[in-house]
Amino acid sequence: MEKILKLIEKDLKKLEHAIDSLDSTDVKIIKKMVNHIIKSGGKRVRPILVILTSKLCGFKGQKHIKYAAVIEFIHTATLLHDDVVDNAEVRRGSSTVNTLWGNEASVLVGDFLYSKSFELMSKDGNSKIIEAVSGATTILSEGEILELLKTSDPSTTEEEYFDIIYKKTAILFSVACEIGAILAKADSKKKQLLKEYGKNLGIAFQLVDDLLDYTAQENKFGKQIGTDLKEGKVTLPLIHALRYANEEEKTLIKEKLADKSATNDDFEKIKGIIDKYGGFEYTYNTTKRYIEGSRKCLEGFRPSKYRDALMALTDMMLTRKV
Amino acid sequence: MEKILKLIEKDLKKLEHAIDSLDSTDVKIIKKMVNHIIKSGGKRVRPILVILTSKLCGFKGQKHIKYAAVIEFIHTATLLHDDVVDNAEVRRGSSTVNTLWGNEASVLVGDFLYSKSFELMSKDGNSKIIEAVSGATTILSEGEILELLKTSDPSTTEEEYFDIIYKKTAILFSVACEIGAILAKADSKKKQLLKEYGKNLGIAFQLVDDLLDYTAQENKFGKQIGTDLKEGKVTLPLIHALRYANEEEKTLIKEKLADKSATNDDFEKIKGIIDKYGGFEYTYNTTKRYIEGSRKCLEGFRPSKYRDALMALTDMMLTRKV
Repeated sequence: MEKILKLIEKDLKKLEHAIDSLDSTDVKIIKKMVNHIIKSGGKRVRPILVILTSKLCGFKGQKHIKYAAVIEFIHTATLLHDDVVDNAEVRRGSSTVNTLWGNEASVLVGDFLYSKSFELMSKDGNSKIIEAVSGATTILSEGEILELLKTSDPSTTEEEYFDIIYKKTAILFSVACEIGAILAKADSKKKQLLKEYGKNLGIAFQLVDDLLDYTAQENKFGKQIGTDLKEGKVTLPLIHALRYANEEEKTLIKEKLADKSATNDDFEKIKGIIDKYGGFEYTYNTTKRYIEGSRKCLEGFRPSKYRDALMALTDMMLTRKV
Repeated sequence: MEKILKLIEKDLKKLEHAIDSLDSTDVKIIKKMVNHIIKSGGKRVRPILVILTSKLCGFKGQKHIKYAAVIEFIHTATLLHDDVVDNAEVRRGSSTVNTLWGNEASVLVGDFLYSKSFELMSKDGNSKIIEAVSGATTILSEGEILELLKTSDPSTTEEEYFDIIYKKTAILFSVACEIGAILAKADSKKKQLLKEYGKNLGIAFQLVDDLLDYTAQENKFGKQIGTDLKEGKVTLPLIHALRYANEEEKTLIKEKLADKSATNDDFEKIKGIIDKYGGFEYTYNTTKRYIEGSRKCLEGFRPSKYRDALMALTDMMLTRKV
């Protein structure tokens, strides 16, 4: 990661500056709320994708910084709305906006960031990018709704799970890469490869997120672990375990999902069941397949330090602990 | 109103068809939730503005229908998010989406409609319109946040109140008219006049809304009356009354605003105080000034049936009971 950050050090500084200046508003409290979440140690993965893919395709201008900031704004807007949906109290190790200022503020500040993002893009006037991003955010909202519908549903299939994580997470990774390609006026084959790279990377990212929600050390993860189970979210480790679990185990899992009543003890018990049937290993191996998929897409590009960096990002997914 | 509806009868039919078809999604429940609110007897004032202003400026194409639908989608998205903020249980005489499907669904379906709107606009590729609309929705979200900040604040000034209603309501009326002008490629003077017409009309619309929240007959209004007071919203009738009320009256109002505890009895008492100091008359007279302002803007256009219709809309504001 350090190597990647070093490679685009100047751009990342400009990105932080852009994030600070582009979300301008006369309403001071908005700025305060946005800063609370956007300056709390996000990994900037999505903006880094915009920067690296645009550079990979030979982009020489400065506009990629603005779009990188926009993608982070959109991501932040989804976090604000997610926290209302999940009633989350902690994010990135800090209290969430909805806990500090109420659900209303989270909804409205999220709306502000969405609108501001489209305003910033429209001022640039690149309609291909606006079309790609608005298409992506539509799919993203569909994914969030699908996830909501599948809450506490133990019959959620692996196929449904992958549909949800593609839509709610991977689509934004994919469109970040697409922006890079559009900015650099890459040909349609390259654009397609980068979209595919982002999609695979995003799915891997979410798989690891769902894995870490069971296996991470809480003090490092920056959010509470075990929240997926407590919120009734049926993720791949659990889907796999449910295929092999005996009746008693299934009953326990279904019960805890149904009334979202899992205690820490239940969590440990269910974690044990998942482990017993290899649910974590299965998820890890699946992640590796998506990582390989994303690496394969990069092989369509000539070697360069930017390609190396995008390759390195894929490795990071597998080793990340937070 | 009948005359206006007759004049654009065909376009209004096409509008309903566009509303039905443009919010397409594979997720059936989204369609169901959107239909629940968008097909529940909204007055379609904002889309009517797009249609009439484009026709006034001589637009001959069909795109105005699509943009009229988009403006209704955006309006609907704000209603969905408003209902979460206000915890509203009834809207247009029906249960709200958040009551039926939960706050989460309201937030996410609102997001879907926002994104879908920008997706539809970006496919058309008119960057002037996207810029105008995204600028407007940014201001709109600022207005909603300002309103939230001023909740239960008896020191809210008339100036602050007008800033809020311009931003949360009038900006969407204004941009609806701007779209008409942009579509018809009207000159900048005409565009400015139409934006100003929409702004004045929108402010008048909100003033009447705030008046009716005290004075309407509940069975006709389609939402509960007295909700502003109960939610701690400080509107013009109350601002005016607070200027003249004696200490005892002020204390009652402040108390009920502060803890949002107004009962029906309190509502009647406070309604009496507002009436005593002419708060309703003051609001009505202020509305008339804005209506005059909007009519003045139309004088910059040659007489036509569309100008007549836009004039008639202004009268409607003053006489509407719902």
